[in-house]
Amino acid sequence: MRPKVLIASYLEPERVERIRAAVPAVEVVYRPDLIGAPRFQADHTAPVHRTPQQEGEWRELLAEAEILFDFDHTHREDLPALAPKLKWIQATSAGIGQLVKRNGYDRQGWRFTTASGVHARPLAEFCLMAMLMFVKNYPVMDAQKRARLWQRFNNTELRGMTVGIVGLGRIGRDIAQVCEFFGMRVLACRRRRTNPPHTVDTLFAPDQLNDLLPQVDFLVLCAPHTPETDGLLSAERIGLMKPGAVLINIARGALVDYSALKRALRDGRLGGAALDVTDPEPLPADDPLWDMPNVIISHHSASTADTENGKLTDLFIRNLHRYLDDEPLENLLDIELMY
Amino acid sequence: MRPKVLIASYLEPERVERIRAAVPAVEVVYRPDLIGAPRFQADHTAPVHRTPQQEGEWRELLAEAEILFDFDHTHREDLPALAPKLKWIQATSAGIGQLVKRNGYDRQGWRFTTASGVHARPLAEFCLMAMLMFVKNYPVMDAQKRARLWQRFNNTELRGMTVGIVGLGRIGRDIAQVCEFFGMRVLACRRRRTNPPHTVDTLFAPDQLNDLLPQVDFLVLCAPHTPETDGLLSAERIGLMKPGAVLINIARGALVDYSALKRALRDGRLGGAALDVTDPEPLPADDPLWDMPNVIISHHSASTADTENGKLTDLFIRNLHRYLDDEPLENLLDIELMY
Repeated sequence: MRPKVLIASYLEPERVERIRAAVPAVEVVYRPDLIGAPRFQADHTAPVHRTPQQEGEWRELLAEAEILFDFDHTHREDLPALAPKLKWIQATSAGIGQLVKRNGYDRQGWRFTTASGVHARPLAEFCLMAMLMFVKNYPVMDAQKRARLWQRFNNTELRGMTVGIVGLGRIGRDIAQVCEFFGMRVLACRRRRTNPPHTVDTLFAPDQLNDLLPQVDFLVLCAPHTPETDGLLSAERIGLMKPGAVLINIARGALVDYSALKRALRDGRLGGAALDVTDPEPLPADDPLWDMPNVIISHHSASTADTENGKLTDLFIRNLHRYLDDEPLENLLDIELMY
Repeated sequence: MRPKVLIASYLEPERVERIRAAVPAVEVVYRPDLIGAPRFQADHTAPVHRTPQQEGEWRELLAEAEILFDFDHTHREDLPALAPKLKWIQATSAGIGQLVKRNGYDRQGWRFTTASGVHARPLAEFCLMAMLMFVKNYPVMDAQKRARLWQRFNNTELRGMTVGIVGLGRIGRDIAQVCEFFGMRVLACRRRRTNPPHTVDTLFAPDQLNDLLPQVDFLVLCAPHTPETDGLLSAERIGLMKPGAVLINIARGALVDYSALKRALRDGRLGGAALDVTDPEPLPADDPLWDMPNVIISHHSASTADTENGKLTDLFIRNLHRYLDDEPLENLLDIELMY
């Protein structure tokens, strides 16, 4: 009997075929009629509507599945009961630690592999876009355009500016590389103290974060959400940031005290923010962040590139081979560290 | 008698002192009361208001000047008559060929050195900002922000996209380097066929431009304005561009048929434009470009970085030493080529 792989969120049919062709030793079950239709490319959280009969069919598939491509967002809490044969879930995002913990998946003996690396370049590009929009004074450009006013204005360049990167996973390292290319000074903060990449000028331990904050023109948060990073950028720490500094949050909303952030932006203490994530999410319609001209909001989509599913498929195929060969899986989640 | 250097547009007093200290063999005359007050950092075209007495003083200074730092924008046509001892003008911009020709300066036996290179990095950064804003779908981000709508959307990444760079001077080469770093395919068009930089995948001659146009996702114009480049991007050539392609013009407005460009943008034939320069300039208040959401307008300020005057001062000091030592000047304008 070939191990059964159940595809639990939308994947293009040609990519499903690619998996089947590359790994004939597994049986790939793909039922687009039982999962959500994507609202955009690489949409892995589309709403699902099933008739009672379809729901029954889905549960039969879950009952037989040994491997899931993506979490089943229609059965978060009862997944352990519904999928007794499950051994491994290949996630479609990198930050899955909280989801695993919250639903008790860590007590099932399952393995989890993250999508770490898949979103690194799109997110690094988003960070660079935001940094450039601030150094080029895009808010002024845009205000003058809306006022139909042709007036010269001043801007600056990235060279010589300082970035602070909190979290040096695949995303953080890619951001460090991009910033180094543009002649920026790169400070970084991570738990592990050894062998920082050559693109990092100075490495700070988590308990030295307060020494990093006053030095940086741009603060990029790209650490996983763990008990240690929850509320990491507190009101007190926002107060330590350089006046006029810009926050870029591509991690999770829970890392930041958003009330304090809004005060600092409103008071002009901070120069701006680029927020892919917020707390809460979605951002309520009456949130003052919507109206701030120096805030870029990317609706948790900065990583949602049309290149995503292709990279995910490549990763999944590599991991299926490793799984069948009893080799260590790529991007295996460390249940203790939660990343 | 030390050669007299007249500073003809605003320069920070500390930078003037730096020139004096570095090159004591020249006499540096700087009269901020007789030139325009800058409206922004590195403003070299500020309006000038002189009393009749001040105007007399200025003319006395011109009459003695052997070297000008910047053109005298208050005496464009009569500069040859007012500055009989003039031998060299160090410009503060790179594209000075038309100004020199139009005012007959090329018939005075003067030398001209351009600011080529000073603006390369700020302009390359501007191009990259624009490219990223389009691949990251910033117009959608911004529209959703204004509508206070949190909705996920799709975007893409630069890797694998194709850029076409018209003009491979300092600016064009810097853009090629940046695009190559981001994994883009780089096509370029320039007159000289030999030794393209390694960052360029394919080099096209000017008469092969029509072969380049259908291939590129982004077309960057950074060629000088010469009789050969006047009207270069004609209606016919805009029609050859790939549907959805984006134009970035950091050269001069006269290179582009703006009426045809506006039609192509309005009809959705082109995906967008980032325009540092327009034709005419300033852009009239009733121009339809102001209202197009997929157009970025930077008010001829993309190169106006606060780092500019520092780099200009460095260049001028190097050239003063070369001038005194009878060595070839850096960035010497070729009167025939006009760049």
